[in-house]
Amino acid sequence: MLTDLSHCDFTPEEDLKNRIRRLKERMLESGISFSIILQNVDLFYFTGTLQKGIFFVPAEGEPALFIEKNIDRAVIETPLKIVHINSDRDVKGALTGTGALNGTGGMELDVVPVAVYRHWRDILHFDNFTDISPLIRDIRSVKSPFELTQVRRSGEICTHVFERSKDLVREGMREVDISAILEAEGRKAGHQGYLRMRGFNQEAMNISVAHGRSAAIPSGGNVPIAGVGITHAIAQGPSLRKVERGMPVVIDYCSGCNGYTTDETRTFAVGKLKKRFRKPYEVARQIIEDATVFGREGLDGVELFNCAFETARRAGLEEYFMGYGPGKVGFIGHGLGLELNELPVITPWYHVTLRKNMVFAFEPKFIFPGEGAVGIEVDFIVGSGGLERVTTTPIDTV
Amino acid sequence: MLTDLSHCDFTPEEDLKNRIRRLKERMLESGISFSIILQNVDLFYFTGTLQKGIFFVPAEGEPALFIEKNIDRAVIETPLKIVHINSDRDVKGALTGTGALNGTGGMELDVVPVAVYRHWRDILHFDNFTDISPLIRDIRSVKSPFELTQVRRSGEICTHVFERSKDLVREGMREVDISAILEAEGRKAGHQGYLRMRGFNQEAMNISVAHGRSAAIPSGGNVPIAGVGITHAIAQGPSLRKVERGMPVVIDYCSGCNGYTTDETRTFAVGKLKKRFRKPYEVARQIIEDATVFGREGLDGVELFNCAFETARRAGLEEYFMGYGPGKVGFIGHGLGLELNELPVITPWYHVTLRKNMVFAFEPKFIFPGEGAVGIEVDFIVGSGGLERVTTTPIDTV
Repeated sequence: MLTDLSHCDFTPEEDLKNRIRRLKERMLESGISFSIILQNVDLFYFTGTLQKGIFFVPAEGEPALFIEKNIDRAVIETPLKIVHINSDRDVKGALTGTGALNGTGGMELDVVPVAVYRHWRDILHFDNFTDISPLIRDIRSVKSPFELTQVRRSGEICTHVFERSKDLVREGMREVDISAILEAEGRKAGHQGYLRMRGFNQEAMNISVAHGRSAAIPSGGNVPIAGVGITHAIAQGPSLRKVERGMPVVIDYCSGCNGYTTDETRTFAVGKLKKRFRKPYEVARQIIEDATVFGREGLDGVELFNCAFETARRAGLEEYFMGYGPGKVGFIGHGLGLELNELPVITPWYHVTLRKNMVFAFEPKFIFPGEGAVGIEVDFIVGSGGLERVTTTPIDTV
Repeated sequence: MLTDLSHCDFTPEEDLKNRIRRLKERMLESGISFSIILQNVDLFYFTGTLQKGIFFVPAEGEPALFIEKNIDRAVIETPLKIVHINSDRDVKGALTGTGALNGTGGMELDVVPVAVYRHWRDILHFDNFTDISPLIRDIRSVKSPFELTQVRRSGEICTHVFERSKDLVREGMREVDISAILEAEGRKAGHQGYLRMRGFNQEAMNISVAHGRSAAIPSGGNVPIAGVGITHAIAQGPSLRKVERGMPVVIDYCSGCNGYTTDETRTFAVGKLKKRFRKPYEVARQIIEDATVFGREGLDGVELFNCAFETARRAGLEEYFMGYGPGKVGFIGHGLGLELNELPVITPWYHVTLRKNMVFAFEPKFIFPGEGAVGIEVDFIVGSGGLERVTTTPIDTV
């Protein structure tokens, strides 16, 4: 067993301790007596293992990690003490009657289904749960040095895939074939093979290749460019359409390494990019360069958004910006970590202060209905002096 | 827009009407006055579109499909009348005061998170919801001729991938490289690019390649062979280990076409399969051949399981059967459709009568801890005279 995992970067014990400590502090501040962590990603974040289990965290006192299976693997992956259970009911015996279950409990109510909630309510004879996810997501939004290392490793796979893209995109190739080849390239280079997006009905694909009008068709999701997909049953991702000369080919690649995601976009073209798209492409580049200078620890995300929007407006492109039209723009950036849609969200709609070592994707994109779209997306780490790019991949690709 | 979707097999109006009719009948039988369908897969099943929306189904009277976006696409995909909404709150105006919200409501409580439930409870001023998912899953378990066509198309991609596998598996290749190449092959051949598994914390990968002891390491999930993964943050799928001569290479490939999944497994080996694994491999073959003859409409799934287990027992292999050991075996088959874990489940633990046009994966597998695993998985369509294989791919691969 051990040899199969020897290359894995297990989460350092110090990181786990810090994470749990921060959770307990925030729970105390919020009047939450204990939390039951059930979602696999949060479980991994706080314990270092993804094996089937439940993590109990009291605001004061020692947490308890209950693992049903595979305990042999969990023992290798986490330094935390494990309580082996045969079924969820065993948790009851360990907690009820200990005085642990009182006051207000925390549970991840944004993701835990009603039936699972009721299952635990009945087992624990306790139903006063509040949503702990806002606290967890806030804690997770600031990364440790260990996490930043994983993010950068994930970014290296992005770099590899975009280097390969430049040579690969040819006239007459189907979007889906480009996608298939690049996905395999990423996997061979270390992509973890699965990506996570938090929330109900959220589905993350590793890659989207959309060119010309494929890129301009809106999806049901909260993304500016999703692609059409090869079937209405998926309704996102590459389509069967063949690449035409001069049309922008937008490749949005989501990498994942040791759990940590990165998410970057480049625009390619066979031959010279059509004039229609040249200016918006340059404006997208400008917006990223501006953000790199303007963004820093302490800045309000709304200001970062406004800086970008103002550049689009000055160029006369605001109605195509992010595909929403004036006054309806949703966002221009989203946090990254173990999930693709972490905090912070960079939006005009609410204030968020950028904190050191937050990581987010920043994606100025312009959508021209019926014609095509162009855009660039890079990932940033928030520093005190400015924003640091996660990858070194050039953004100047057409 | 239309040209991009012209190759799609949209769900026939007759199918949608039948599905809705069956749901209404079952709701009436169960005393459910209305249902709110929120999960994307169920939404797609009953409406033919996956765009962002809500489907309201009264037990008596006309259903209403509310779509927020992308309405231009939804209009093409569904023959149902669409009510365009700008936000969830608009649903309230359309339903409250109409007398539609009374009695017991149905909601998919196995997948709808508590926060989403509360959101709708507050919008609709209604909180008497029961879980509609058991009814929906039961209805979905029996496929229409249109659906069987999609299942068979999905199976053709499986066939293509396994044909390619035989030549591909070479000594010294990493499991993950085999996986990457086959995943790309499947995608080029029409794989939809994303697969769905119902339920909390369920994560489906397109392919698992696990050989030797990689295949014998249990996962936290409810599957007999999951692979080790290249990181503990995913903890399933192919690993970085290199294929050794004579060891069984277990390839579990999940296809998806127009929404419909298939899920088959083959065992390969470089050179001659080691003696240790030959007999269990032959027993797995025998179990599948027996099932093909023994299984049919009207049979209890428990009997089908017992028939398989008895063959394993007679061969003296029961303690390795499905990796659980005697008395602890979980299942040997699971339904397939728009999700990878549909009904029926073929298990010793509860009775299910096989009905005509149910589709399920049947996967006899033997796991030898610390050594390796072998197994075969085929997909069956239940017929009145027996079980029909979905693919024609040979199971005799080593």
